[in-house]
Amino acid sequence: MTVSTVASSSLAESAHRTRQAAQQLGYLSGDAKNAAIAAMADALEQAAAEIVEANAVDCEAAQQEGLAKPLYDRLKLSESKLQGAIAGVRDVGKLPDPVGVAQLHRELDDGLILKRITCPLGVLGVIFEARPDAAIQIASLALKSGNGVMFKGGKEARHSCQAIVAAIHRGLNSAGLPTDAIQLLTTREEILELLQLDSMVDLIIPRGSNAFVRFVQDNTRIPVLGHADGICHIFIDQSAVLDKAIPIVVDAKTQYPAACNAVETLLIHQGVAKAFLPPLAAALRKNGVTLRGDAIAQEIVEMEAATEDDWQTEYSDLVLAIRVVDSLGAAIAHINTYGSRHTDAIISESPQAVDSFLAQVDAAGVFHNCSTRFADGFRYGFGAEVGISTQQLPPRGPVGLEGLVTYKYQVVGNGHIAATYSGDDARAFSHRTL
Amino acid sequence: MTVSTVASSSLAESAHRTRQAAQQLGYLSGDAKNAAIAAMADALEQAAAEIVEANAVDCEAAQQEGLAKPLYDRLKLSESKLQGAIAGVRDVGKLPDPVGVAQLHRELDDGLILKRITCPLGVLGVIFEARPDAAIQIASLALKSGNGVMFKGGKEARHSCQAIVAAIHRGLNSAGLPTDAIQLLTTREEILELLQLDSMVDLIIPRGSNAFVRFVQDNTRIPVLGHADGICHIFIDQSAVLDKAIPIVVDAKTQYPAACNAVETLLIHQGVAKAFLPPLAAALRKNGVTLRGDAIAQEIVEMEAATEDDWQTEYSDLVLAIRVVDSLGAAIAHINTYGSRHTDAIISESPQAVDSFLAQVDAAGVFHNCSTRFADGFRYGFGAEVGISTQQLPPRGPVGLEGLVTYKYQVVGNGHIAATYSGDDARAFSHRTL
Repeated sequence: MTVSTVASSSLAESAHRTRQAAQQLGYLSGDAKNAAIAAMADALEQAAAEIVEANAVDCEAAQQEGLAKPLYDRLKLSESKLQGAIAGVRDVGKLPDPVGVAQLHRELDDGLILKRITCPLGVLGVIFEARPDAAIQIASLALKSGNGVMFKGGKEARHSCQAIVAAIHRGLNSAGLPTDAIQLLTTREEILELLQLDSMVDLIIPRGSNAFVRFVQDNTRIPVLGHADGICHIFIDQSAVLDKAIPIVVDAKTQYPAACNAVETLLIHQGVAKAFLPPLAAALRKNGVTLRGDAIAQEIVEMEAATEDDWQTEYSDLVLAIRVVDSLGAAIAHINTYGSRHTDAIISESPQAVDSFLAQVDAAGVFHNCSTRFADGFRYGFGAEVGISTQQLPPRGPVGLEGLVTYKYQVVGNGHIAATYSGDDARAFSHRTL
Repeated sequence: MTVSTVASSSLAESAHRTRQAAQQLGYLSGDAKNAAIAAMADALEQAAAEIVEANAVDCEAAQQEGLAKPLYDRLKLSESKLQGAIAGVRDVGKLPDPVGVAQLHRELDDGLILKRITCPLGVLGVIFEARPDAAIQIASLALKSGNGVMFKGGKEARHSCQAIVAAIHRGLNSAGLPTDAIQLLTTREEILELLQLDSMVDLIIPRGSNAFVRFVQDNTRIPVLGHADGICHIFIDQSAVLDKAIPIVVDAKTQYPAACNAVETLLIHQGVAKAFLPPLAAALRKNGVTLRGDAIAQEIVEMEAATEDDWQTEYSDLVLAIRVVDSLGAAIAHINTYGSRHTDAIISESPQAVDSFLAQVDAAGVFHNCSTRFADGFRYGFGAEVGISTQQLPPRGPVGLEGLVTYKYQVVGNGHIAATYSGDDARAFSHRTL
């Protein structure tokens, strides 16, 4: 079976086909979607050898081209990684159906009923790095949410993605669903084209470097789910307990420094800086962290100087910037100026300081006495994570399946007209919640 | 008291001040906001004579410049219209506080608690036509939702808006709130500048012509709440009852033809076209409606020919396009092709057809056996309407105060770190709803 890939000249036409196929997915029952997800998982299992083989071709080419080790590790799809991804597909089948949920149910008048019902977005445009298991995850989430998807994986993963999509298409086929619902784009040029299809594509999900996400945001009018920066802060308040502060800061910096929810800047109240910074610096250095501090921090512990640039840098590495602030207000002002609205934490035993921090810090996640690393859809219990959004409007923060649906208002009457409710003897609405 | 208006060169600086003032509004209690709203209403009442006088200056200039009658009517602020707007402010005070609502409350583990809490967006950019009462409504909604607002009214309403904002500032002042929270822009050039301030302004609300809304959408990366087109459809299904169909179509077309939720295209099933079109056409023509039909409709009733253009036109006038379709599927396909995802209705007595229509039509409002004119925040019982969004992502459809807030995730722990939950002896999350 050949995978139908998309010729650049007809991308809009392909998107139209995906849109039509998606309309069919949109009104499937939860059971029908779960059956299709199971068929998809079965097809992937049956194609496991084929997929691993295709991946080996990609990996060999990548090695010859000298692909950097971390990228190569992401590209490499071992049998066990593939089985893990297939298990993930089956897990998505177990999640509650995000479509068809009544968010509002109200009588407007006798026999005139308003409902707000969740429904699919339509078509998702997903662009990710050379990480073939992402294609599997995305396909299952799209199907579960009743959306079509056009995706483009990194060119290094070309053979892997084609083998995966061929298997997914077989799964869709055996479930009686249109294979157009999931289309694979193959050329880099198509990314820009995809970003222009704002009447066909409803949401772009970019996965990749900060620079790439920013490129996407700058080049499309389609809403983008994602974030360019994860500049997270921890503020150690005057009332903080050192025994809580040290493990939290060490965890937030070192547990996975490349993660977007790792801490980048530590703010510390001047009242405790002298007492806390030396043991904190020792603990961080023991874990391989390089410190950069402002003048006051440097007076307390010898470290490199932090410049203005450091406050706006996501190191994604074992580096931590430290600034001593003279008040809670100064800490909040720093975060609201330099932060990326991702996740910021306060370590404090003062309920008043905590309340102010949680209320005034403008971020998707505001944490108290715990690591910023908890900012994650799986840890929040969402089952699946589509991405973390640092946009101001919802969906914000870690986004689960609910980020892939929207809603529509249904009004059902029996001949009701608006004229009845206007003018001198206007009838009143009842507006009764049902 | 002079109104502080914004010099173009320092718009970003002004936006920064509004942002800071908004942070203060953001954590006010509901009672404190309602007190400020009352103070705003009082100040407007005290300034009523002043405002009406300023409006008279604007109206005189508009008459000399020959402003079109409908625009003049919107500009004109009579004492009673002003009192109505002030009553509207007091009504906003009675609405539930949209901020601080817990949407999710979950234990992640012992002592590690996740909450999702609604919070203000930050700063709203509102651009509207020469309609001074809109400034009053917007100011009260912004205050209620804890947002700052920078607004720009049409230049014809300059004196009116200045008098209104001066009064609003007096109200804010007497409530002890920063007047920077609500700023008035006065020059047209500032609109484009405002649209560029994507790091300062969180939502743009344009009110005006479709062309203007499209201009705004095309010139900003800030999310825009609103819609350019309102191309609404009614489909008369094969199973429709004529006695319901006629009043609904007449209401949807004639009750207020300039409204975005008025019907523009009537689709009718070929099975009933011959029987229904003649009495329907007679009823519509009795109400002054001009009809344009496709070839089949023209065979049944004499009328002008509809062209491809008609299917994509929002007449905002007593004109209705009519197309005869051969199936429910063709009606849905027409709507999903030409509609603007605003509001579309089916007239039908077949539960199966209704279910298909409500599920498959992609629009913010899908209606059955009632007029499209019900698509309205007040009629839905939202208390206040910020606008109607035809975007795919929420907020969609009529947007009340909830469109002016977002949410943040609060995680409160007691020294919890992520390392505990990973690795070989990883602790499990409880994910228990509280």
